[in-house]
Amino acid sequence: MAAFIRNIPDGDNRERSVCSDCGFIAYENPKVVVGSVIVERGEVLLCRRAIDPRRGFWTLPAGFLELGETDEEGAAREAWEEAEARIEIDGLLGIFSISRIGQIQLIFRARFAGAAAFAPGSESLEVALFPWNAIPWDTIAFPSVHWALDAWHRIGAGPLGPPARNPANDPRGTGRLERSPEDRPA
Amino acid sequence: MAAFIRNIPDGDNRERSVCSDCGFIAYENPKVVVGSVIVERGEVLLCRRAIDPRRGFWTLPAGFLELGETDEEGAAREAWEEAEARIEIDGLLGIFSISRIGQIQLIFRARFAGAAAFAPGSESLEVALFPWNAIPWDTIAFPSVHWALDAWHRIGAGPLGPPARNPANDPRGTGRLERSPEDRPA
Repeated sequence: MAAFIRNIPDGDNRERSVCSDCGFIAYENPKVVVGSVIVERGEVLLCRRAIDPRRGFWTLPAGFLELGETDEEGAAREAWEEAEARIEIDGLLGIFSISRIGQIQLIFRARFAGAAAFAPGSESLEVALFPWNAIPWDTIAFPSVHWALDAWHRIGAGPLGPPARNPANDPRGTGRLERSPEDRPA
Repeated sequence: MAAFIRNIPDGDNRERSVCSDCGFIAYENPKVVVGSVIVERGEVLLCRRAIDPRRGFWTLPAGFLELGETDEEGAAREAWEEAEARIEIDGLLGIFSISRIGQIQLIFRARFAGAAAFAPGSESLEVALFPWNAIPWDTIAFPSVHWALDAWHRIGAGPLGPPARNPANDPRGTGRLERSPEDRPA
């Protein structure tokens, strides 16, 4: 039976997964995560995760970019899938490198397209708007959610400049939150 | 023998390639291209491609981000592999969505780390610095090389603001250059 082996293909300089039967090379590269900080009257939309990892923790509507869509289309799709929110995108708020797990995250600043309507999608337990001082900081799902919220807090509704990047204490995106994935909120 | 079939996995909402034998799901997502506009005394470094597609055409040093590296590390690696240039990165010049081929391109503005030393890597036929008015516009490899060069021309050495995005005439990155890939320069 065919099986993947690790091999350096001709003309390449690093090991790939190669099918020992047909020679097919399964390139594995980092993936793009697209998401948004959706702001309504100074409050930000967060979703409580219904799925692992980090079930029960709060996150921004975000997910993997799919083939055939642009980054902004992907962010709008995720806002719909996770929060049933229709959005208009302002521009790029932050671009984060998470080398530990092979991700580039593009986070946009956005607002509702029309009235502020939202509801939990199938991957969310609940969805809510939070003012800055009521954000559930103890139960945020991922470090980059903190980074994006910090970037939003710095500029608010002001003009977007260069996108925020990884913070100085985690330039390569290798850190974890102190809380373990198994330590779920009640 | 095992074979991949197209199927919508449980909990998903689009077709994936699934192994009919073991159920392994081969997710295919867009890839990240990282590259740089390397500037020296107002001139920009271009590489003439030694490989397909677009062999013989000029491009920026750029390529696929690899697992385990940050976007800036990837851009620096590509500058070394394609142009034997050691660089220092200023910041993000442009972020382009090329939905036609499933790419997100992150293009940085950079300069040489130390003296301006460069040479063709294995994927380049030649490497050279060009002032704006001597750029070989008729033999540029890809539309996004035009976009990145335009972005650099607009800001020069000035402060970086929001990164350039796709131009208004190709917001989804679906266009091609008029010249066909087979139409190689002499």
